[in-house]
Amino acid sequence: MRALVALAAALATTLAARPAAVADPRARDLGIPFAFGRPGAWNAITDVPGVAVGHVTLVQGDSVRTGLTAILPRGRGEDATRPCFGAVFALNGNGEMTGTEWIRESGLVEGPILLTNTNSVGVVRDAVIAYAARRWPPKPDGDWTVWSLPIVAETWDGTLNDIYDPHVRPEHVTAALDGATGGPVAEGNVGGGTGMVCYGFKGGIGTASRVLAATAGGYTLGVLVQANHGRRHQLLVAGVPVGEELREGAPPGEEMGSILIVVATDAPLLPHQLERLARRAALGLARTGSVAGNGSGDLFLAFSTANPRVGESEGTVPLTMLPNDRMDALFEGVVGATEEAIVNALVAARTMTGFRRRTVTALPHDRLRELLQRHGRLGTP
Amino acid sequence: MRALVALAAALATTLAARPAAVADPRARDLGIPFAFGRPGAWNAITDVPGVAVGHVTLVQGDSVRTGLTAILPRGRGEDATRPCFGAVFALNGNGEMTGTEWIRESGLVEGPILLTNTNSVGVVRDAVIAYAARRWPPKPDGDWTVWSLPIVAETWDGTLNDIYDPHVRPEHVTAALDGATGGPVAEGNVGGGTGMVCYGFKGGIGTASRVLAATAGGYTLGVLVQANHGRRHQLLVAGVPVGEELREGAPPGEEMGSILIVVATDAPLLPHQLERLARRAALGLARTGSVAGNGSGDLFLAFSTANPRVGESEGTVPLTMLPNDRMDALFEGVVGATEEAIVNALVAARTMTGFRRRTVTALPHDRLRELLQRHGRLGTP
Amino acid sequence: MRALVALAAALATTLAARPAAVADPRARDLGIPFAFGRPGAWNAITDVPGVAVGHVTLVQGDSVRTGLTAILPRGRGEDATRPCFGAVFALNGNGEMTGTEWIRESGLVEGPILLTNTNSVGVVRDAVIAYAARRWPPKPDGDWTVWSLPIVAETWDGTLNDIYDPHVRPEHVTAALDGATGGPVAEGNVGGGTGMVCYGFKGGIGTASRVLAATAGGYTLGVLVQANHGRRHQLLVAGVPVGEELREGAPPGEEMGSILIVVATDAPLLPHQLERLARRAALGLARTGSVAGNGSGDLFLAFSTANPRVGESEGTVPLTMLPNDRMDALFEGVVGATEEAIVNALVAARTMTGFRRRTVTALPHDRLRELLQRHGRLGTP
Amino acid sequence: MRALVALAAALATTLAARPAAVADPRARDLGIPFAFGRPGAWNAITDVPGVAVGHVTLVQGDSVRTGLTAILPRGRGEDATRPCFGAVFALNGNGEMTGTEWIRESGLVEGPILLTNTNSVGVVRDAVIAYAARRWPPKPDGDWTVWSLPIVAETWDGTLNDIYDPHVRPEHVTAALDGATGGPVAEGNVGGGTGMVCYGFKGGIGTASRVLAATAGGYTLGVLVQANHGRRHQLLVAGVPVGEELREGAPPGEEMGSILIVVATDAPLLPHQLERLARRAALGLARTGSVAGNGSGDLFLAFSTANPRVGESEGTVPLTMLPNDRMDALFEGVVGATEEAIVNALVAARTMTGFRRRTVTALPHDRLRELLQRHGRLGTP
Repeated sequence: MRALVALAAALATTLAARPAAVADPRARDLGIPFAFGRPGAWNAITDVPGVAVGHVTLVQGDSVRTGLTAILPRGRGEDATRPCFGAVFALNGNGEMTGTEWIRESGLVEGPILLTNTNSVGVVRDAVIAYAARRWPPKPDGDWTVWSLPIVAETWDGTLNDIYDPHVRPEHVTAALDGATGGPVAEGNVGGGTGMVCYGFKGGIGTASRVLAATAGGYTLGVLVQANHGRRHQLLVAGVPVGEELREGAPPGEEMGSILIVVATDAPLLPHQLERLARRAALGLARTGSVAGNGSGDLFLAFSTANPRVGESEGTVPLTMLPNDRMDALFEGVVGATEEAIVNALVAARTMTGFRRRTVTALPHDRLRELLQRHGRLGTP
Repeated sequence: MRALVALAAALATTLAARPAAVADPRARDLGIPFAFGRPGAWNAITDVPGVAVGHVTLVQGDSVRTGLTAILPRGRGEDATRPCFGAVFALNGNGEMTGTEWIRESGLVEGPILLTNTNSVGVVRDAVIAYAARRWPPKPDGDWTVWSLPIVAETWDGTLNDIYDPHVRPEHVTAALDGATGGPVAEGNVGGGTGMVCYGFKGGIGTASRVLAATAGGYTLGVLVQANHGRRHQLLVAGVPVGEELREGAPPGEEMGSILIVVATDAPLLPHQLERLARRAALGLARTGSVAGNGSGDLFLAFSTANPRVGESEGTVPLTMLPNDRMDALFEGVVGATEEAIVNALVAARTMTGFRRRTVTALPHDRLRELLQRHGRLGTP
Repeated sequence: MRALVALAAALATTLAARPAAVADPRARDLGIPFAFGRPGAWNAITDVPGVAVGHVTLVQGDSVRTGLTAILPRGRGEDATRPCFGAVFALNGNGEMTGTEWIRESGLVEGPILLTNTNSVGVVRDAVIAYAARRWPPKPDGDWTVWSLPIVAETWDGTLNDIYDPHVRPEHVTAALDGATGGPVAEGNVGGGTGMVCYGFKGGIGTASRVLAATAGGYTLGVLVQANHGRRHQLLVAGVPVGEELREGAPPGEEMGSILIVVATDAPLLPHQLERLARRAALGLARTGSVAGNGSGDLFLAFSTANPRVGESEGTVPLTMLPNDRMDALFEGVVGATEEAIVNALVAARTMTGFRRRTVTALPHDRLRELLQRHGRLGTP
Repeated sequence: MRALVALAAALATTLAARPAAVADPRARDLGIPFAFGRPGAWNAITDVPGVAVGHVTLVQGDSVRTGLTAILPRGRGEDATRPCFGAVFALNGNGEMTGTEWIRESGLVEGPILLTNTNSVGVVRDAVIAYAARRWPPKPDGDWTVWSLPIVAETWDGTLNDIYDPHVRPEHVTAALDGATGGPVAEGNVGGGTGMVCYGFKGGIGTASRVLAATAGGYTLGVLVQANHGRRHQLLVAGVPVGEELREGAPPGEEMGSILIVVATDAPLLPHQLERLARRAALGLARTGSVAGNGSGDLFLAFSTANPRVGESEGTVPLTMLPNDRMDALFEGVVGATEEAIVNALVAARTMTGFRRRTVTALPHDRLRELLQRHGRLGTP
């Protein structure tokens, strides 16, 4: 039965996600220019080899507008149990990300990263442990299973989603993990981003990537955001303060939202270097206009898929490190890809009506292009 | 039905707790000396006015040995919704404490602190939100309820408890919160500490306090620990390396455990000063012999019940601050009370048999007294 | 003799600084638009009541192009010995700022903040102690003087300045401190910024401010930067990537520089809130295009002049706090003022030839205006 | 001339240091027991291969009682320019250690660590740069020399030393660096520790080491302290509260002092692992009774001499890492060696009279042994 639910959910996700990923325009398709190098094949976090993403999107009736997104740094096969080096940075800690104390201490990301709504962090967290215990049962002598301190983060979708009613359930965690794949990543109103709001427009999931020049090592860096932050007047696209002109449907008042940013790379970075990378995500966010408002939970995580043996516990472990002196191309990459992932989320999201008949409008593509054109910032798609 | 379960659980807790609190000897009763001043009336975290503690102890059949402990900084009445200034310190982050990003950012502890087992953090976390939403429903315009980023921490009781079977449920959270009181605090095999192991002896909950001299402000400082850490040969009591001699039943191998330390005070400290206080808990822990092993989740939290208006959001808030120059007495207090709370946990805990018929032995009082006597360290109880 | 040197140096500074402050155009005078509110009377850090700034500019012969800038949070009168609440944030720690350990621990900025070149941090630091000991001699019982852990920060001016020859001397510290005043602040090639380079153009000192709306408390926030960071192709002005077009004189290679950002406010913020403010300076920096390159020492400090009694050591101290919920206007202010201060530094700096006959070109005002005009981003000055 | 001064100073140091290192009893020689394994050949930080220590001791007339101590992680030969992985931890930041921002950012310790008095940090810092620039001149194209962000830390010797008169000069830095060697390390009233006070007794420099069992990797870990901290009643030796009984000459009042702790190891630890090691030094300090008083600058630094290529800037760098799971033996080692180094400082220091005819008494060996004997804690030397 559980397996059936999982299958159905995964299927639903795939069906929902496919069209968005394949046919809908992304920010570059609209001619929006971005800085700092060129993207990978999918312009997605999945351009980093091995990284898999799974969405479960829950849109039911009038008031369920939520979901969850799973990122598996080393995919969903047996490599899933291998830790990665990782690090976190809190630009503004008005949010939850479980597992951060151990990431900070150990330098390791052990297991998947799950993004969901604020009130579902707990159920998702415990379900990750249960999933791991089923799949890789702890030894009879009472050892821990893998994934004992899961990484689950949230943003608040209570504007469009009936968040105090618990809709995200353990079987959705199974579906997201078992359904995770490489390749194109659905954006906008999907997964954990389903009900999110960004600069007063409909927000959600966005992703982008950069491939470094061969002289800089040829590494790939990908970013995935769950964008639920910002106030309308702050919005910048390609440096143009479009939020000051696109005033339609702008909600009043203070920022209630948050943004989660996950950065993946195959560059061989150590934990303290990944913390540097995570910190730079703030600079990409700033290029879209955010000031990291008091109510915003701006929590960033970076991991490296290089160094497959970092989780070993015997002997000593051979590693490779990129020198600090060679990190600037990655710094530019994370800034550029973060900015682009946020705009991708805005471009992909669709107008949504949900809880209490509230409607949040999508960023109007035509009006946006017109404004960029007027500012000499519209490129050839 | 829910209320009934809650009532029953609270009752069970009270019954279980009472004898321990009233009749059983505590460390001082055995003549063990402690440094740095004198304790308050209960020698417990509840000596800090307003602080309430509630335990739910789950001991069922052969393999359920777990529970949870709730600490309400401002009690369980309507003041429960008033934030306190607070701070956290991770001596070794191999553990989970949810809510820490917001504590670090805001300087606030908003709501109760719950201690439970590793695999129950999620269910407890979501249940705290649900409890708050029931008791203080969010406004119809979609605002957050209070307690939206709950603080839930854990240590691992998988040695004695069948931890992969979920025994802690939402109704236990309600029972712990609704059953919290001031006054004496049950120690040892109760609440979140039910199945814990400390220096290879049976561990669990312990508490202690210090009242500062009037010249130092007369403030009260209390500590509560969930002690599940350390290896036998490391154990010091009153500076005597008793762990090297008390070798009975010492489990082999590396440290699997952790210690949670919660520090409360009515001294008017700001968040950065409370972080200083939390950091000193490490020095008290060190006096019992711990080296904060790699496997130990040593997460500490400190809060101040002074300054009742810190959570206001309009205008400006009048505060009082104790100068840094006057903090030394509190530093001594937290070191002394932490050391004593840990020894209290060891003294109160009883030999327990649980999961897979494993038995963990209690610290033998007589042998301990004999050793201290031999080292000229036994005082008059 | 010492007094004479001090006087002469202060005089030289005043003379050098005056024309720049009064007559030369600043960024707004060129029609460059900036976000997030309106500046104060001087559009300078000195708009925060009490804050004083003193520059000593050392331009001698072919190869001396350096200096130092002193910021006195409470001016240079007797209030100078009163600490402020303060905090630091390291966006990229490739630089020196002395005194940060105590700021982090105590939450206090005790004394002036001095900005100079990399190799002069030591002499300036010890000279601050000597200055304080002369002016406020320690008591005969051996107590510390005030200012025992001075705050001295640096950026590298070795491109234009013969930095391995020690040109900054103790008497310059005296001159900077004794010459500090409120009112307009000289920008560009002055003080610690004399020999600095920014985005491959001549950089240096810049400043700006914001005055919050009365509904947001009416507080003032000011920023002063010593700008020595960035690579040409990264430069954004008003969101326009002008660095990609203004290629004249762009030095090749990686970033060698750094930026120091000092944020002052009269809003009553606690230390942890000031850390939040300092962190947001990164977002303002990002709006000028920086990615905080590996070689860049990007160290930020924020202080509040409110709460004059924070340094008292007896009894308890009454304070006022702005709630976290009311900080968003300050967050916008620090982002806006930081962006503007950096552009002010670029606009004020003049082409300079120095060490080894190297020349660094000023940002060409006309070309810049032309580019902004073309992108619909030039306002009426 | 400079060379001559250097030679003389080094000679003076050597002469002063030799007898102490060779003939005087250390803590173990008195029969004081210490936990956690066995020391290396010298029971000193220099047991870590390559580490060199140089003292310059300045004792002149009635009021000069100061000096400096240099620790060169890779000795004073050409390897001195190779960085190490390193990390810092501030238990209580009431002190100065320059260079910490870059250590935190880069994970590197680049160059020597110098310990001196509070008011001489600046002169020592600039002198390190000057030394490096003389020995390894920067390239003509204006590059930085090595050691551009020196690491210089301090404790306050103003009780015995006329600290406002500048006695430490650049030539002493040269002497300390050029005179650094491996082998035995002088303790007590030498180098930076010359005028220091510890628990109200004469303090100063102390050192100790641990060699891990072959099964734990056989690594060596060494600690060097400049001990100037604590109040008399707090002092514990071997767990015995001797400070409560040894009241002779105890100065009244609050803690004015500080302790610097430097940890060296040849275990292949990454920067985040070294931060873990540095943090554990606090636990060793706690075992001597300190509560890290408000006035104490308790700054700790750890470095690893493994991985000689960490400072390279081309390509990628091959590294070796000790797994987190194998760090417990190092954690025990750093706790044990820190405790022992502090007691070694107390045992080695001699009664000193200095500034304003103040006298600080040495820890009386006989009385100490008598107290330990009485508590069954005196072993066979």
